[in-house]
Amino acid sequence: VARKEKKLCGLTEFVGTGRGDTIGLVIANVDSSVHEAMKLDKKYRSIGIIGGRTGAGPQIMAADEAVKATNTEILAIELPRDTKGGAGHGSLIIFGAEDVADARRAVEVALKELERTFGDVYGNEAGHLEFQYTARASQACEKAFNAELGKSFGLLVGAPAAIGVVLADTAVKAANVDVISYSSPASGTSFTNEVILTFSGDSGAVRQALIAAREVGIKLLGTLGSEPVTDTVPYI
Amino acid sequence: VARKEKKLCGLTEFVGTGRGDTIGLVIANVDSSVHEAMKLDKKYRSIGIIGGRTGAGPQIMAADEAVKATNTEILAIELPRDTKGGAGHGSLIIFGAEDVADARRAVEVALKELERTFGDVYGNEAGHLEFQYTARASQACEKAFNAELGKSFGLLVGAPAAIGVVLADTAVKAANVDVISYSSPASGTSFTNEVILTFSGDSGAVRQALIAAREVGIKLLGTLGSEPVTDTVPYI
Amino acid sequence: VARKEKKLCGLTEFVGTGRGDTIGLVIANVDSSVHEAMKLDKKYRSIGIIGGRTGAGPQIMAADEAVKATNTEILAIELPRDTKGGAGHGSLIIFGAEDVADARRAVEVALKELERTFGDVYGNEAGHLEFQYTARASQACEKAFNAELGKSFGLLVGAPAAIGVVLADTAVKAANVDVISYSSPASGTSFTNEVILTFSGDSGAVRQALIAAREVGIKLLGTLGSEPVTDTVPYI
Repeated sequence: VARKEKKLCGLTEFVGTGRGDTIGLVIANVDSSVHEAMKLDKKYRSIGIIGGRTGAGPQIMAADEAVKATNTEILAIELPRDTKGGAGHGSLIIFGAEDVADARRAVEVALKELERTFGDVYGNEAGHLEFQYTARASQACEKAFNAELGKSFGLLVGAPAAIGVVLADTAVKAANVDVISYSSPASGTSFTNEVILTFSGDSGAVRQALIAAREVGIKLLGTLGSEPVTDTVPYI
Repeated sequence: VARKEKKLCGLTEFVGTGRGDTIGLVIANVDSSVHEAMKLDKKYRSIGIIGGRTGAGPQIMAADEAVKATNTEILAIELPRDTKGGAGHGSLIIFGAEDVADARRAVEVALKELERTFGDVYGNEAGHLEFQYTARASQACEKAFNAELGKSFGLLVGAPAAIGVVLADTAVKAANVDVISYSSPASGTSFTNEVILTFSGDSGAVRQALIAAREVGIKLLGTLGSEPVTDTVPYI
Repeated sequence: VARKEKKLCGLTEFVGTGRGDTIGLVIANVDSSVHEAMKLDKKYRSIGIIGGRTGAGPQIMAADEAVKATNTEILAIELPRDTKGGAGHGSLIIFGAEDVADARRAVEVALKELERTFGDVYGNEAGHLEFQYTARASQACEKAFNAELGKSFGLLVGAPAAIGVVLADTAVKAANVDVISYSSPASGTSFTNEVILTFSGDSGAVRQALIAAREVGIKLLGTLGSEPVTDTVPYI
């Protein structure tokens, strides 16, 4: 799919597109003045870029897989207030590489992973819920959420934020997990209407916490509108 | 209404819903790690939560009545950038209580008050106006707007922000009121497209200032679209 | 047009409206308590105000022409996170004048200029692109973007931000221009989903850089939706 779209666009910088109005791009040799203005590490001439209007968690988790699978590093993760009028974030993620082929490969992997990482995003007309899990956190989860490298990591989001407060409480009561961070509209978000909890623990405990929160979240968000649904396939 | 919806949801944490995609929730005994992550006062094991996608002023004024009427305190008021693509804020308000029945009661009162406090919110396709008044400000107005406890308090909002500048000037020229705060996109808001003026004074003066600003606001916002209207009943 | 709309509104403060849900207003003699709360220079009793839901660049460039053409100064430029659910900013711009006729004239000029300055704004359902140019930057460009007075100045915006990264690189590779600033979701914007590059150089070089970026931007944004179009007439 990425290859076909690339042909349609005709630019060497274009890699492909994905869910959440996400675009994947690559610059083989970033101009020195832009490189400096972006405050990038000089080691990386080539950058891969993924960014979307809707979603930060899915793109970050996808980038986490991409950085594991390629010879790249995460240089920046920035979170606009977006989701096209929704309650959450958009995203801008920069991969650094010494070789453009590595940067391109990272973007390709991330775009492909988006299909999975949007799996536990549930929405209706009033808000959204998000649940993410990895058995082994890598650089993107570390940079964005302060996750410990190589450990199990879980993330939950409730929007409007009021729902996220209850989901956070539900998750930590459901299993023996350690809270890493709690973010809310005034702290740790870009003024989104979300509460975001991140946590670690045994792989089974992290999943159990997420599953418990997901069940409660779908019921609560449903009181404000229609049954919250995912557009793709749950993976947790 | 709250009771009926609670039954539909089936969770003890659910209290009810209200205007502005507002949900009311309660946690009887907040998990200690979440309690700490939320930086709540240890005194309060139970919390009540109201939060909506659309509106901060209406929910804050409703919480102000709730805290007067119950044995609770306002622990946090946070203002996301929201209104579902509109120009203003959403809201997240946390009540603290030693007993869960008090927290629940505060949430019930606040949800009920929303019908009134949305009364002087006027909108069209281009923006919104909001006017709020209380004869006796309580903790929510103090925490959110630095209002003096027990005194008359007024609040006006104009969006887009340019309109709010004129409303601020109109209000203070119309009656003998004292400006408490002036907020604008770059200062005192979560980057909303609003100017917000808060003020105190004699009860009659505060109302007179609001009524004068309301008249001008409806005319100005109307030049950008259709006649601004409220979805409920004005109370000022 | 402004005159006709003014008559319809019937308020002396109303000057007119323009693209981007922009309203133009004037206050002949700002109330002293509001003047102080707005932290305005005491020298200016009269203020002109333009502000819109959609767009900051077009309004700033329009204000730049207005301040050149009138006896006014730019007192404030504030950028809400807006565009009515889109990826960018709204705007609030305050002109100061000693005489109300000057403030009014500045607002009239700015509203008229908006037709031109929206010329190189291209949008589709997934995002937007913006390109602005002036042969001689004035106070508004200086205040908002740190442009050097009297010099050629260019501005480009790509949204989602990922596209803006490539446009920035494209522009500086296409012509000999000097980067003034690079803004992104986490730095220099109000958490918009944009990358904004500003630059100076020879008049011809600035235009060449913008034209190259525009060509690439339209192709890239088009991969996420329909062909990006302007609602008015390109001027670059």
